[in-house]
Amino acid sequence: VAKKDLSALFLHGLKDINFTEHVILDSLPIMADAATSPNLKKAFETHLQQTEGHVQRLDRVFGLLDEKPVQVPCDAILGLIREGDEMVEKFDGGRALDAGLIAAAQAVEHYEMARYGALQAWAEELHLREAADLLRQTLSEEKQTDLLLSKLAQESANRAASG
Amino acid sequence: VAKKDLSALFLHGLKDINFTEHVILDSLPIMADAATSPNLKKAFETHLQQTEGHVQRLDRVFGLLDEKPVQVPCDAILGLIREGDEMVEKFDGGRALDAGLIAAAQAVEHYEMARYGALQAWAEELHLREAADLLRQTLSEEKQTDLLLSKLAQESANRAASG
Repeated sequence: VAKKDLSALFLHGLKDINFTEHVILDSLPIMADAATSPNLKKAFETHLQQTEGHVQRLDRVFGLLDEKPVQVPCDAILGLIREGDEMVEKFDGGRALDAGLIAAAQAVEHYEMARYGALQAWAEELHLREAADLLRQTLSEEKQTDLLLSKLAQESANRAASG
Repeated sequence: VAKKDLSALFLHGLKDINFTEHVILDSLPIMADAATSPNLKKAFETHLQQTEGHVQRLDRVFGLLDEKPVQVPCDAILGLIREGDEMVEKFDGGRALDAGLIAAAQAVEHYEMARYGALQAWAEELHLREAADLLRQTLSEEKQTDLLLSKLAQESANRAASG
């Protein structure tokens, strides 16, 4: 019988976010490529580097649990990425593209904020202090990225989109 | 040629979140049914009532734009809901079910927070003051629901899950 307690839920969540981070690694160069403004391109490129760090932190958390860094496919992130692709298809060549890309990226950031928020609370409850610290560091970077994207939208992309 | 400016992006976003809210209306009774703790059941039921209000606000925003309240299917919310269903399949009968349901619901709340955050900023940029107010009211309720769910996780569900 499969375990159905918090440590099982925590391990399942780690495999899900591990898949998510790898999908995002593949997606960010496409987003950077599609972006019109140099500032937004740079934000996506910076976040790509951060995301490589997030994968390394997850590897360390799996190591702390003596588990392999398995990935479990996750429909949510695939749907979120598909919406980003759709944004490019629909708004490519138009002045609202960057505003749409930012919104798609912020939906991804929010997904990760929800996941890392739960994971770090579960790690605390399980007294996995070091794992909780690593997860909190990534959570904090996701929140910063979300704020940076809001700033780019408000300071330039939304204005540019409305013409 | 389809318009690709901010008002087109705004209208597309409204149709997407309108679909999302209707999917959530269908999903919340299932979540309430699956939840173990009376407090969590009640939180899902309260949020169901709020969600009915969110649909009514969207109807008003469409009305302000002289548009029909169309729904555009959105892969992201379907993936998020599928993850909630998976949580029930995997953890039903186990003590981590409520913690898993809360995490699934918070991922949905965060998706909505990202969407409503962008929509209200776009409405402001388009000088649609009344629409922006309506969207901000819903955004504020989604944030409150997310905080309530965090509280339920930290005060009881995570502890119960770790046994």
